Amino acid sequence: MTPAPTPAPAPARWAFDSFAGREVLIIGGLGFIGSNLAHRLVEVGARVSLVDSMNPLYGGNLRNIAGIENRVTVNISDIRDRHSLPYLVRGKAFIFNLAGQTSHMDSMTDPFTDLEINAAAQLSLLEVCRAHAADARLVFASTRQLYGRPQYLPVDEKHPIKPVDVNGINKLSGEFYHILYDEVYDLRATVLRLTNTYGPRMRVKDARQTFLGIWFKLALEGRPFEVWGGEQKRDYSYIDDVVEALLIAALDERSRGTIYNVGGHEVLSLMETAEIVNRVFGDSGLVQKTYPPERKKIDIGDYYSDSTLFESRTGWSPKVDFEDGVRRTLDYYKTELEHYL
Amino acid sequence: MTPAPTPAPAPARWAFDSFAGREVLIIGGLGFIGSNLAHRLVEVGARVSLVDSMNPLYGGNLRNIAGIENRVTVNISDIRDRHSLPYLVRGKAFIFNLAGQTSHMDSMTDPFTDLEINAAAQLSLLEVCRAHAADARLVFASTRQLYGRPQYLPVDEKHPIKPVDVNGINKLSGEFYHILYDEVYDLRATVLRLTNTYGPRMRVKDARQTFLGIWFKLALEGRPFEVWGGEQKRDYSYIDDVVEALLIAALDERSRGTIYNVGGHEVLSLMETAEIVNRVFGDSGLVQKTYPPERKKIDIGDYYSDSTLFESRTGWSPKVDFEDGVRRTLDYYKTELEHYL
Repeated sequence: MTPAPTPAPAPARWAFDSFAGREVLIIGGLGFIGSNLAHRLVEVGARVSLVDSMNPLYGGNLRNIAGIENRVTVNISDIRDRHSLPYLVRGKAFIFNLAGQTSHMDSMTDPFTDLEINAAAQLSLLEVCRAHAADARLVFASTRQLYGRPQYLPVDEKHPIKPVDVNGINKLSGEFYHILYDEVYDLRATVLRLTNTYGPRMRVKDARQTFLGIWFKLALEGRPFEVWGGEQKRDYSYIDDVVEALLIAALDERSRGTIYNVGGHEVLSLMETAEIVNRVFGDSGLVQKTYPPERKKIDIGDYYSDSTLFESRTGWSPKVDFEDGVRRTLDYYKTELEHYL
Repeated sequence: MTPAPTPAPAPARWAFDSFAGREVLIIGGLGFIGSNLAHRLVEVGARVSLVDSMNPLYGGNLRNIAGIENRVTVNISDIRDRHSLPYLVRGKAFIFNLAGQTSHMDSMTDPFTDLEINAAAQLSLLEVCRAHAADARLVFASTRQLYGRPQYLPVDEKHPIKPVDVNGINKLSGEFYHILYDEVYDLRATVLRLTNTYGPRMRVKDARQTFLGIWFKLALEGRPFEVWGGEQKRDYSYIDDVVEALLIAALDERSRGTIYNVGGHEVLSLMETAEIVNRVFGDSGLVQKTYPPERKKIDIGDYYSDSTLFESRTGWSPKVDFEDGVRRTLDYYKTELEHYL
């Protein structure tokens, strides 16, 4: 490995009010990350448009924009619909590309849908941006899943890539298309490889957005949740930290053409994670299970991220520790759970 | 970098007659590499079926099977046609998957076609194999293009991946799907990343299969060919060496789930390459040109492969040096050129 680059001095503070009055498109904007980003952007005065397919398997939920519904433009369409994209991207200064099929298991049972959304539709979005939004600043949300089983920890961006499921392969294509179009066609794109992101507005009805979703739901209902294995180490990102990372990535011109890891600083085993969830939610118990054989083959063992590159270049760092984040999530779902079932 | 694995003793000789009587499918079988492989397999007594789309932009040419046309089964269909694949793969002991869009420039002007052939169709082939040919031994031909601009030379399999065109991204997906289906579904697949392959039956009417094709054609016609740049270093693989590598990869059970580089031992600059071509073909001159700007962005500079891993594991090594290979190619096209225009 080459030594880490000398950190350039990071701006003391990113001026998020520079989004004020700017046209921002969030693809996947009714989903977990997209809607939290929308709330923040509305707060700083951006003109926010949300595109979402409202596909019931994904994160889209109109409840996610409660309170800002009259301050954003909502368009229901799928990123696979090439026909609507030119209209939707035109005139946008920033495009946050957060639409994706995120379930690892679904990518194995229906690999073609995963390919269409995570690879083919990304390519068509970029082609449309070339033609209709060549000046837009693009940020693409990717996943740590493409590293596969870590060969060393924490995992930095130089770690070899070895996807363990179809989702990881297709997300990798999506990333590489963005970086390629940045280099060849001068679109300005940045890729963030996110780790387990959690917080208010996440999908909790099942495990399609991290296992934490279903844990939170069951714990809130006073029911035990399942821990598969228990020793596996993970890091987590609280949603507000991820939203800040996305905004900074969009503003930082030095970050164009770059792929960054964005993860948490705390490393917890699944069992430690479960104990914190139970402590915060009021212990409803848990059931420890051996890893189901059909999932074993796509399990990645221990994983946690090294985000040093992004932190040193931009000054970003995660601010919300896991227990605090879980508490904030609980506060949200205490009154909101019914809208997420 | 971790040290290279200790070479296990390689079999003294691979018994290609173990293909005798076996059902072999070659996808892209009327193309350059596929048809040469077919000739060799017919020679050792295999029962050979060829699938090819005969897409005029690719390498398919019925002349390629002159002499064996009555000893092979030919089926004209495209790998994108999911409907015919189950019938075609059923009962096959070996499947050589050589169909692909190979032009780097075409992948930029028509990225969706490249995606359909090099990624989506590969996924559908693997799904069909799971269902209908779970016992077949698969060999997939990939490309060195996915390494991008080398960070060190020669390039081994641990070199970081950074495709510089859409073709490299989609070929990478095709590879990873094969390796994933090997690991998760127990299909037995090996991937060979080939370098510039040349020889009889290559496409020579344009540069869609390496620049050598068009050089050979122009030299044969007594016309000067263009050398873009000249300093760039390359390695080359003569087709007979590649055919042996494919056969060995199919027979070697220890190679399943593995990605190998397969390249040449000689390293030549483009200008040295051009001089050898002119020496063999009878000097028709050449025109040195600066690199065209629209291609500059997807140029990879110097590239040559390190095939040590494949060589040490299997005992394979390239046998035909470049000048000899060019001479054999000339011998072929002296009488055959008219069928390739």
